[in-house]
Amino acid sequence: MTFTQMLAAAWQQRDSLLCVGLDPDPAKFPAHLAGCDDAFFRFCAAIVDATADLVCSFKPQIAYFAAHRAEDQLEALIAHIHDRHPGIPVILDAKRGDIGSTAEQYAREAFERYRADAVTVNPYMGHDSLTPYLAYADKGVILLCRTSNPGGSDLQFLDVGGEKLYERVARLAAEKWNSNGQVCLVVGATFPAEIARVRRMVGAMPLLVPGIGAQGGDIEATVKAGCDTQGGGLMINSSRAILYAGRGEDFAAAARRVAHDTRAAINLFR
Amino acid sequence: MTFTQMLAAAWQQRDSLLCVGLDPDPAKFPAHLAGCDDAFFRFCAAIVDATADLVCSFKPQIAYFAAHRAEDQLEALIAHIHDRHPGIPVILDAKRGDIGSTAEQYAREAFERYRADAVTVNPYMGHDSLTPYLAYADKGVILLCRTSNPGGSDLQFLDVGGEKLYERVARLAAEKWNSNGQVCLVVGATFPAEIARVRRMVGAMPLLVPGIGAQGGDIEATVKAGCDTQGGGLMINSSRAILYAGRGEDFAAAARRVAHDTRAAINLFR
Repeated sequence: MTFTQMLAAAWQQRDSLLCVGLDPDPAKFPAHLAGCDDAFFRFCAAIVDATADLVCSFKPQIAYFAAHRAEDQLEALIAHIHDRHPGIPVILDAKRGDIGSTAEQYAREAFERYRADAVTVNPYMGHDSLTPYLAYADKGVILLCRTSNPGGSDLQFLDVGGEKLYERVARLAAEKWNSNGQVCLVVGATFPAEIARVRRMVGAMPLLVPGIGAQGGDIEATVKAGCDTQGGGLMINSSRAILYAGRGEDFAAAARRVAHDTRAAINLFR
Repeated sequence: MTFTQMLAAAWQQRDSLLCVGLDPDPAKFPAHLAGCDDAFFRFCAAIVDATADLVCSFKPQIAYFAAHRAEDQLEALIAHIHDRHPGIPVILDAKRGDIGSTAEQYAREAFERYRADAVTVNPYMGHDSLTPYLAYADKGVILLCRTSNPGGSDLQFLDVGGEKLYERVARLAAEKWNSNGQVCLVVGATFPAEIARVRRMVGAMPLLVPGIGAQGGDIEATVKAGCDTQGGGLMINSSRAILYAGRGEDFAAAARRVAHDTRAAINLFR
């Protein structure tokens, strides 16, 4: 099954547009995990097991593992998701971007080493920096378009001849780079008007929307701006608000409650 | 010593603007390294030891290690450079770019885990995605500006109101983001006219110039376009042409000959 097919099935079977971001920060782990050699894996796997029936995807962020020499735990975590919760796509949030020969190595890292179903990629270096990812025809390639952070406007909001740079990225993605139906876009929840513009430009292309929860994006505005004509098409990411909902031994149950409520809040407006 | 100071000293002491890129591809290793558990380290360390007196910097590319689960060998390689060849700055070529909380993790990965002196960063997400790197005041932050690949023009060459996007990046780098004197720019050797434009915009800011050698950039045009008023200011990168100059047991000696000749070819036009 391709990433796009897995995602469509997960949306339907779990009635959920929620993506849980796995950004493990050991400073915020519950005390009973302190000092465990595999604390990153145990923390994230507990979150995964507690929320898997509520989500359309999981999105581990590789920096949180790499900063702590925990690549092996990231591999184990993705294998755990595939083994225990088959059918839920895993997005490796890595935001890579490099020339073709190096991008081949990054694609190999994401899809062969980590067995991710999709990877986030930065479009600044253009089409040939994307080709090595697109060569994995069953995998998803999720391009940064309009990011949720304040500095996103420094370049992405520049006018490039009647449209903004992020709109140009959306148009290139829809018209040139998606011949195989495997491209998606990142559009931040902090800018609902821009989610709506991107949606009009890209038809039913799936959008990964970070920025609700800790970053302050509004769920109602995001859903109304971003859903496709079928009331779907979104992976609405929440990381910190779910991961750190509780700080005790019952952290996974607390995460489940927030994930449940977030899914419901999203579904209210579809 | 800061990255900028190390670089200035290395330029002078070694009379060299040459940066050797360490992109280890096991398919191209000499036969006697096949099957070694630490082939990535041994290959790169041999290149380093054979060329250290000829270069102003080394630039390991993390993707080549990460695709093969060789992060430990990358750590060992950078430690080897610091221990055996003190004073030569190490640039971790990673091209990261993410929101602040994640960028903190990437900065920690580059500067604390790997002990790099500088890291390459993608500017697409704007100022707050750079802040966590800039917070390491003694480290270099090398922003993608005008990349050497064909697709670089897709976005970087767009007109954003009287200047191209890459020129806006150069201007933001020079006027807003470099308050601590630690920012550098990547400008590809395949576009000498654009190197010259960037040089005029950024004064003496160091430029990392990939694209000579295997990618076809012209050394004379690069040096004439890119040197600052003192005949310096460049890190001219060559990777494959040096690393794979020889394929036998004498590969390091072959690499040294090409590095020697490349340094001389560069110095001819300063």
